[in-house]
Amino acid sequence: MTRLVVVGGSAAGMSAAAKAKRVNKKLEVVAFERSRYVSYAPCGIPYYVEGLVKKLDDLVYYTAEYFRKERGIDVRSRHEVLDIDANAKKVVAKDLNKDEVLEMRYDYLVLATGGKPLTPETLSAKADGVYTVRTLEDGERINVACERARTIGVIGGGYIGLEMAEAFRLRNKRVLLFQRSFLMSRAVDLEISKDIEDELSKHDVTAHLGEAVKGFRFRGKVMHITTDKGEYPVDMVVLAIGVKPNVDLAGKIGVELGVTGAIKVNERMRTSLENVYAAGDNVETAHLVSGNPTYLPFAPAANKMGRVAGDNVAGGSSVFKGVLGTAFTKVFNLHVGRTGLSLRQAREVGFDAVAMDMKHISRSHYYPGGEQIHVRLVADKESHRLLGGAITGKEGVAGRVNALASALWGRLTVEDLTQLDLGYQPVFAPVWDGLIVAANIIKRRL
Amino acid sequence: MTRLVVVGGSAAGMSAAAKAKRVNKKLEVVAFERSRYVSYAPCGIPYYVEGLVKKLDDLVYYTAEYFRKERGIDVRSRHEVLDIDANAKKVVAKDLNKDEVLEMRYDYLVLATGGKPLTPETLSAKADGVYTVRTLEDGERINVACERARTIGVIGGGYIGLEMAEAFRLRNKRVLLFQRSFLMSRAVDLEISKDIEDELSKHDVTAHLGEAVKGFRFRGKVMHITTDKGEYPVDMVVLAIGVKPNVDLAGKIGVELGVTGAIKVNERMRTSLENVYAAGDNVETAHLVSGNPTYLPFAPAANKMGRVAGDNVAGGSSVFKGVLGTAFTKVFNLHVGRTGLSLRQAREVGFDAVAMDMKHISRSHYYPGGEQIHVRLVADKESHRLLGGAITGKEGVAGRVNALASALWGRLTVEDLTQLDLGYQPVFAPVWDGLIVAANIIKRRL
Repeated sequence: MTRLVVVGGSAAGMSAAAKAKRVNKKLEVVAFERSRYVSYAPCGIPYYVEGLVKKLDDLVYYTAEYFRKERGIDVRSRHEVLDIDANAKKVVAKDLNKDEVLEMRYDYLVLATGGKPLTPETLSAKADGVYTVRTLEDGERINVACERARTIGVIGGGYIGLEMAEAFRLRNKRVLLFQRSFLMSRAVDLEISKDIEDELSKHDVTAHLGEAVKGFRFRGKVMHITTDKGEYPVDMVVLAIGVKPNVDLAGKIGVELGVTGAIKVNERMRTSLENVYAAGDNVETAHLVSGNPTYLPFAPAANKMGRVAGDNVAGGSSVFKGVLGTAFTKVFNLHVGRTGLSLRQAREVGFDAVAMDMKHISRSHYYPGGEQIHVRLVADKESHRLLGGAITGKEGVAGRVNALASALWGRLTVEDLTQLDLGYQPVFAPVWDGLIVAANIIKRRL
Repeated sequence: MTRLVVVGGSAAGMSAAAKAKRVNKKLEVVAFERSRYVSYAPCGIPYYVEGLVKKLDDLVYYTAEYFRKERGIDVRSRHEVLDIDANAKKVVAKDLNKDEVLEMRYDYLVLATGGKPLTPETLSAKADGVYTVRTLEDGERINVACERARTIGVIGGGYIGLEMAEAFRLRNKRVLLFQRSFLMSRAVDLEISKDIEDELSKHDVTAHLGEAVKGFRFRGKVMHITTDKGEYPVDMVVLAIGVKPNVDLAGKIGVELGVTGAIKVNERMRTSLENVYAAGDNVETAHLVSGNPTYLPFAPAANKMGRVAGDNVAGGSSVFKGVLGTAFTKVFNLHVGRTGLSLRQAREVGFDAVAMDMKHISRSHYYPGGEQIHVRLVADKESHRLLGGAITGKEGVAGRVNALASALWGRLTVEDLTQLDLGYQPVFAPVWDGLIVAANIIKRRL
């Protein structure tokens, strides 16, 4: 019997396992997962901490039990894969419950080891009172710890940092947020970032921007955050400065890594080794606007990559083309969405890019409940191609960003966008949608 | 001095006038409009009748006064253009206030005469108690008349009929809606239409579907609606069975009409006559999925066409590529959106098309407030191209339809759609967005 072993049971891993089994019923599929949970949604952790999501189990899509019984997948949770022998085609795993080590032969391997939080030496997350946000167990630990905390330091102003800051604030904690540059600086330009800054300030989150955290001071547990500008007493710290690919096992067996440090795969999600595939937050993929390899560890791509890997292992022939970096977040009442390249990113990869910002309204002016939206577009002077966009506002953001994502996928020009047949109805959009108006404005700057 | 005369001061006309003047300050721009209002939003009439919009003036984007003072456009409202002499390049207009006739020479003409409600002989809207919905004056008449009506018949189950039915119901009227086939039959397939039918029934609108209205019985005013199945007492009637292009003047001067009966224009919005342009609900345009000429009188296209016509008259060189028929409506709490071709439409124009329907959720399952959405996609078996889509639900509809519209513009295939990098965040979308799941389903049917 042919056996697929999947290392890692989160988004990519379980998508791969499920797809492979569905395509080829005869395939034996075994999935190892270190934590107690498989197929879960770490993106829901802030809402668990906030209290909107009542049980951690609500963040689980499918249980190990379900995969075993309904899908015929041999899921081994609380199993840590310690080693792989790529020549002998064997994995060595430790059953963390029984504290036993087992060996298992494979025909195909899918590495879905995910990412791990960046934790510089000076900011160790192993120290007492310092937490990272990755697994559901992390969510539980934070949820318990913050109960007694009055002041919480959040380090990092990206998606996770912002969402955790909001969650703590809504639990009535004092929140200090530290970010070396500006908020969401890896995703958006300063113009969009400012809107988020305003929203944080309206909700009494103190954002220390342009301030570099140097370390912590401890007395038993973390007591102070030390930065290049001062020292701040805190009861606990959440470290959310980024994610890096977990390539420890891949490195061990000589799987080729790419320029980003993540695993290099082809369009079929195969690594440099025969029969070894990889998917999720441990791989790099093509950015469909720049064409460059990129490392953007987001769940939708991880799921899609897993599905493609699983299909190919099972004898199908799927390809994963790449990503646009589309992402949404909500910061209190502000919706934020972005796709493609920011102006800075576009220039970094060599486009002669321009950007524009404008304010528009989400609905017809006469229909109640309309909200102001801020649209920022980035386009290429030479080809007139749309390169990216970001929107903030209290409604009507996500859908418009998705429309921009589709436009980027189709390599639409600014001229196309001025004509795009977007829907109109007083409740949902003004007759000149903000995207069309924005396109008309940026067109004049090309 | 070069003079542009615009006939019709609604969406297309005023867009043309404003754009032309902005591009060429030296151009003299005169716009004739029969009604009291220019640049207004008839799409807001249902919300005025419902009472959400307080004053009819709220539906006016810009007043004639504004165009005169701020934009330097000579707007003549309450002026009806009676005749055009294309050889002498003159329009003959009647000042309806003074009851005087005037002549005016033009160098360029933009025909923005719009559409007019379909009113078959047997269903005359001139009869007492029978109304059509087109101008703001219509809105006012209906608003006054319905005050005393207890039972209102709405004939036509398209966008306007549905929105008027809702408005009357929310004013606590008994509403009988008649539609010869099924609801929104020109826009969606029966599968989507059924959702709307359910929503009407939840809100006690009696929908008589598959029932053909034959005429009215009068006693001074309309007293009964007579159909092929029965006779229904009503206090007033709104006739909303469709719109046809108003091409009376165009016909008179020999402007070529297209296969749909609307004015034929090139991509620059020029008619068959030198110096005569046309834009809005009186022209036909290319359907960007079928490639065929189509007549789809929607405001966003009218505005864009007007802008293109105005730019070209003023010496610019813009093109209008065509439409996708993207449209939204809201029927009580149900959001409805569609773009591209329905299955029936796709087959009619010769595609070997398939469709699929699925139910999904608007947000992550664990985030409160998620609503079920119904996604229907239509695709071409041969090329795998996406041909159209329609969505219903209580939230998350409009944005997803716009994403599909962008995808249609870019001629994306179903395979592209399975991979599309749409945003994810628990508040806005599940990790597998409904569009992606739907694409994966329809892919298996190709």
